[in-house]
Amino acid sequence: MSEIRVGLLGLGTIGIGVARILIEQQELISRRLGKQVRLVTAADRILGRDFDLDLISSVRLTDDANDVVTADDVDLVIELIGGYEPARSLVMTAIEHGKHVVTANKALIAKHGEEIFLLAAEKGVAIGFEAAVGGGIPCLKALREGLSANAIESVYGILNGTCNFILTKMENEGADYADVLREAQELGYAEADPTFDVEGIDTAHKLSILAAMAFGSRIRFDEVFTEGISRISAADIEAVSELGYRIKLLGIAKPHGDGSDMKRIEMRVHPTLVPLSAQIAQVSDSYNAVQICGDFVEQTIYIGRGAGERPTASAVIADVMDIARVAPDGVAHLAPPMGFVESERSELETLPVADIECEYYLRFMVQDKPGVIAAITSVLSDHRISLEALSQKERHATQAVPIVMLTHETAEGNLQAAISRITSLTNVEEDVLILRKENFGA
Amino acid sequence: MSEIRVGLLGLGTIGIGVARILIEQQELISRRLGKQVRLVTAADRILGRDFDLDLISSVRLTDDANDVVTADDVDLVIELIGGYEPARSLVMTAIEHGKHVVTANKALIAKHGEEIFLLAAEKGVAIGFEAAVGGGIPCLKALREGLSANAIESVYGILNGTCNFILTKMENEGADYADVLREAQELGYAEADPTFDVEGIDTAHKLSILAAMAFGSRIRFDEVFTEGISRISAADIEAVSELGYRIKLLGIAKPHGDGSDMKRIEMRVHPTLVPLSAQIAQVSDSYNAVQICGDFVEQTIYIGRGAGERPTASAVIADVMDIARVAPDGVAHLAPPMGFVESERSELETLPVADIECEYYLRFMVQDKPGVIAAITSVLSDHRISLEALSQKERHATQAVPIVMLTHETAEGNLQAAISRITSLTNVEEDVLILRKENFGA
Repeated sequence: MSEIRVGLLGLGTIGIGVARILIEQQELISRRLGKQVRLVTAADRILGRDFDLDLISSVRLTDDANDVVTADDVDLVIELIGGYEPARSLVMTAIEHGKHVVTANKALIAKHGEEIFLLAAEKGVAIGFEAAVGGGIPCLKALREGLSANAIESVYGILNGTCNFILTKMENEGADYADVLREAQELGYAEADPTFDVEGIDTAHKLSILAAMAFGSRIRFDEVFTEGISRISAADIEAVSELGYRIKLLGIAKPHGDGSDMKRIEMRVHPTLVPLSAQIAQVSDSYNAVQICGDFVEQTIYIGRGAGERPTASAVIADVMDIARVAPDGVAHLAPPMGFVESERSELETLPVADIECEYYLRFMVQDKPGVIAAITSVLSDHRISLEALSQKERHATQAVPIVMLTHETAEGNLQAAISRITSLTNVEEDVLILRKENFGA
Repeated sequence: MSEIRVGLLGLGTIGIGVARILIEQQELISRRLGKQVRLVTAADRILGRDFDLDLISSVRLTDDANDVVTADDVDLVIELIGGYEPARSLVMTAIEHGKHVVTANKALIAKHGEEIFLLAAEKGVAIGFEAAVGGGIPCLKALREGLSANAIESVYGILNGTCNFILTKMENEGADYADVLREAQELGYAEADPTFDVEGIDTAHKLSILAAMAFGSRIRFDEVFTEGISRISAADIEAVSELGYRIKLLGIAKPHGDGSDMKRIEMRVHPTLVPLSAQIAQVSDSYNAVQICGDFVEQTIYIGRGAGERPTASAVIADVMDIARVAPDGVAHLAPPMGFVESERSELETLPVADIECEYYLRFMVQDKPGVIAAITSVLSDHRISLEALSQKERHATQAVPIVMLTHETAEGNLQAAISRITSLTNVEEDVLILRKENFGA
């Protein structure tokens, strides 16, 4: 039986998961693939670590990642180091040496994907990155191949398990953000420095990849409008719930202009009010979901584990098997990495933030003095922003109280101008929480 | 730009959808594929019909399907006739003539798939049938390729949109089966003869394909245990709802024995109690869902439109594009149609119905006489069937009243033996409704 020889970069949690799946499923993989996938060499900076896996002790270990990406007996490199560098340099070197690359590194693809794809095409090697978006869920394959006959009309994703875990726990327990974050960190669900997750950057990495694949554009991570979940309070979650919504950190991408006249792409990541009746509202804990609407297929949803050793290993090895099936000389028979023939990918611009149109949830903290609501609503009215709901719960003579509003649709730029005027009003504090709402047909 | 030339069998709803997508998305398909997909000829028995599509009037039309499957200028045949014959003969002839085949015909694949795959392998052509299961949802691709590194632990599917529409409407409106069926027929959601849908046969077709792909076994449609929804009443739906469940017609497949020691496959289709909190319980109306658990990826769920002109056309053309990408001489670079190399597919037996273990919902109609519940529970106890819940709602002196029970797990054979004894008891009517329950971790 022929084989594909794999070199592994990084023996952290995911690396061990990949080694484990290659051992445990060796027979199954061969039965499905008709070839063997053999782990030949692995690199990690911390050698001497006590690995509990037989295979790891029998593969060639090195603490120099360059050995792996240049090795003569490696056909395919799996990059699991994460981050921008040295991952980028190692991947580029691997491609230069004619090796296929599979990676779970969303930051790498979001930031350096375009140069990686170009070099890979030039060298005739394949790039797989299913594990970079949605963890174990084969959502990129669905978008790239399963829905390839559709003009994509929208992509929504719960793409960060840490944030979804935190929001679910805040809602279920009425707990505050800081407490739940601490717990998530203790459980290993959140990093010591949680910024990438909770501030939406990880979601923006993934969304930028999904959007470019959906609309045939270039990956433009830097242009994603991004807000995280760290300012949401238990009180907001409760107020939202009373209005019939739940807060999810969503990545959202939509095309503007119709069909071939498509001109600009909207990309945004922010905590979003979703109706309790929407399917995506039911996706809880650390689960991820990607909802893709195509003009023929209509709505489709893909749900599963968005991270973790075993689900990520599942996606990594699926890519390895797809590549092994066409290797060594059939790479042109794979779907192009971003779902469009390279020369047909376009230079669509990103819709400016000010032009994004949304419905909003606004929470103002005000001194409960006569006329304050009138003053706020008067500014909103000046900006032609109409209200769907308004509630003021408790009244205190001396303390700031929250006023919560749902608006009808307006442009982000218009809203921000109104907010700026409102926060300069007497009796309105500067701390305004702005959330956005999606209706999902409800 | 190179092209793949398509011949179409059947110009019904789906056929028109396929023609439409090929016209409307011509440019998009080329941008994604790097080739053109060109409809060359189409066959339908009812020619002279007034087609509203420009392309249809420019393609070669025939009323003899044999013209299409033998035409020199056709590389790929799309079969949309449905049913066993003449679809089988036409597909076999197309393959004999070296043509790739894409079909939406689940009955054909469930019944004749094995001989079709064998001939296709012999002739070096590809077979695509994504549209046969889950309509527009790319669930076969997910199972075959996206989850290919996993040993599959279970497959659950809401696979028939007609049944899901009927059950959803019965629940939402408290309406009876017959009334909702009539309405579904008037709306075109159900056939004039609804047997294939409502008696679970269509679901069994699809489940048999999913199971064989999941477990590397042969397609054994005839061995699927199949019950439909036609005996469910509004009262059952209400009783089930009070217990915290919802009724869905599920296809269920599980392997028995661990990993490579896998010996038998459980396949069943029946109305199933699912907890309201389960994701699959939220899949309503004519939507389909496939839930696949793999040993590495854990639970994944795929939701979308299970039928209809446009979603089905989406799946058909995705298959065409996958094949066009490798054609003419790279068919070996496609994943094998059933997800395992042909020689590695096994002859696993189907678990006998009597050995299936379930929890049950039982509804007995009884004369409300002293001792009747004691007599029933005594028989159940004889068979070591323990109860999780029991309820008797109303009491009538003269009329039969329903008694509803939830049992703990027991084997189907044991349950049937107990039921047989119970229905021979005085004061118990023969009409017992047996539903099965799945807990989905709830």
